Amino acid sequence: MNYKHIVQYYETDKMGITHHSNYIRFMEEARIWFLKEIGWGYDKMEEEGIISPVVSVSCNYKKTTTFPDEIAISVSVLEVNQVKLKLGYTMTVGETVVCTAESVHCFLSSSGKPISIQKQFPEFYQKLCELSRGAKE
Amino acid sequence: MNYKHIVQYYETDKMGITHHSNYIRFMEEARIWFLKEIGWGYDKMEEEGIISPVVSVSCNYKKTTTFPDEIAISVSVLEVNQVKLKLGYTMTVGETVVCTAESVHCFLSSSGKPISIQKQFPEFYQKLCELSRGAKE
Amino acid sequence: MNYKHIVQYYETDKMGITHHSNYIRFMEEARIWFLKEIGWGYDKMEEEGIISPVVSVSCNYKKTTTFPDEIAISVSVLEVNQVKLKLGYTMTVGETVVCTAESVHCFLSSSGKPISIQKQFPEFYQKLCELSRGAKE
Amino acid sequence: MNYKHIVQYYETDKMGITHHSNYIRFMEEARIWFLKEIGWGYDKMEEEGIISPVVSVSCNYKKTTTFPDEIAISVSVLEVNQVKLKLGYTMTVGETVVCTAESVHCFLSSSGKPISIQKQFPEFYQKLCELSRGAKE
Repeated sequence: MNYKHIVQYYETDKMGITHHSNYIRFMEEARIWFLKEIGWGYDKMEEEGIISPVVSVSCNYKKTTTFPDEIAISVSVLEVNQVKLKLGYTMTVGETVVCTAESVHCFLSSSGKPISIQKQFPEFYQKLCELSRGAKE
Repeated sequence: MNYKHIVQYYETDKMGITHHSNYIRFMEEARIWFLKEIGWGYDKMEEEGIISPVVSVSCNYKKTTTFPDEIAISVSVLEVNQVKLKLGYTMTVGETVVCTAESVHCFLSSSGKPISIQKQFPEFYQKLCELSRGAKE
Repeated sequence: MNYKHIVQYYETDKMGITHHSNYIRFMEEARIWFLKEIGWGYDKMEEEGIISPVVSVSCNYKKTTTFPDEIAISVSVLEVNQVKLKLGYTMTVGETVVCTAESVHCFLSSSGKPISIQKQFPEFYQKLCELSRGAKE
Repeated sequence: MNYKHIVQYYETDKMGITHHSNYIRFMEEARIWFLKEIGWGYDKMEEEGIISPVVSVSCNYKKTTTFPDEIAISVSVLEVNQVKLKLGYTMTVGETVVCTAESVHCFLSSSGKPISIQKQFPEFYQKLCELSRGAKE
């Protein structure tokens, strides 16, 4: 289960490579795709008045990429609890790992208060727990 | 009266030059600065519930620029009437014109209906008319 | 023959819509896809030492779009001669035209001198002429 | 010693806040400014044939920002050795810390081989060591 991103010309920089900031955007693309795949569309989430700000990101650049490489991105659930979701990303071009990354997310009501996904969205929470190897329930 | 934009590294592409899409963003930066200079902050406009979508843009690329060039952008009012505002942009690096551009804007209420800036914001409209050479009043 | 672009979350702005500057990037994506479709990959062009700067763009925004709209982009050859190529773009979401646009391109050697695509790439030129309705040959 | 970045309208997203990927770009702006301040312009570095890819970044988002906030960014040298430079960033709006971040960089010759900044640029290396509290020399 992999998301694909073709590196665009406008995503390169004068070093001739994909600008490193764009990988953070590829993570978002892959995350939104992943959440939709497991039945949790980001647009539907917003319709329900939930916002999910990014708490932190980290990104390790292993190999450079450039236009028009196809980057395959796999997403995994590293950790989930009532207030926080931690995702992992592995990006490859062919057989080569080009980038590994992580992101942490929380869930807020439209008024900005943290919500418990376990209570409010038990099925989604259950799904995330199953996907998370070693997640504490 | 000029706005300055320093070309950032992330704004370049693998051709070694400023990616052409970024000039549309420089226009926005200069426009927001210009409107604020004439007493009409874009954030205040939004607070009053007015949105001002871009109707059209055109951009003529005369010379390439690159990191870390300083682009000076002058903004002028080309045309204004009750429902539409047309702005012109001249971008220079030193003495060299690198880009000329135009943008057209309309003004909508938060519900999406066109509003007459002449009626609702007569002072702002007056100011734009003064700045517009040959504007029909 | 249409290129598809799914609007990404990071391409929206605080007005809740796709930021207008991104359409210039969608044009590039569609253009590169279109040139490849007719047998003229942009990466191959660069390998041959040819660069093709954008001379001008214009963009008419008809309807707003937002995440996660799928924009279909058709590209057509509006005009071609020895030194210049003019492309047209029609962007639709479902049946609705959301944006029409044009771009003009020239072709330069790696040393920055204009090259005649008719002389140096007669087959490509021929193809462009065929695609251009009313192109002067 | 602080770099200032005014959040642009095009840097916001439909959540109404600065899109989190842009902070990685603000880090680059601040880093380039910082290196120039200590006598090591990034454009000069490139002229000397040195490229400095980003090895990793991490970013902790503390508070949201939006257009037209002014973000002040302070840069510090966290660690430097012969092959690696680690920088820290603290971003504030007024008195409020909105983001803290780190980046790691290496230095390569134009042929892609790691170079020792200590050997090739002893003065720059010395300066970085002085700035790094607790750097091992």
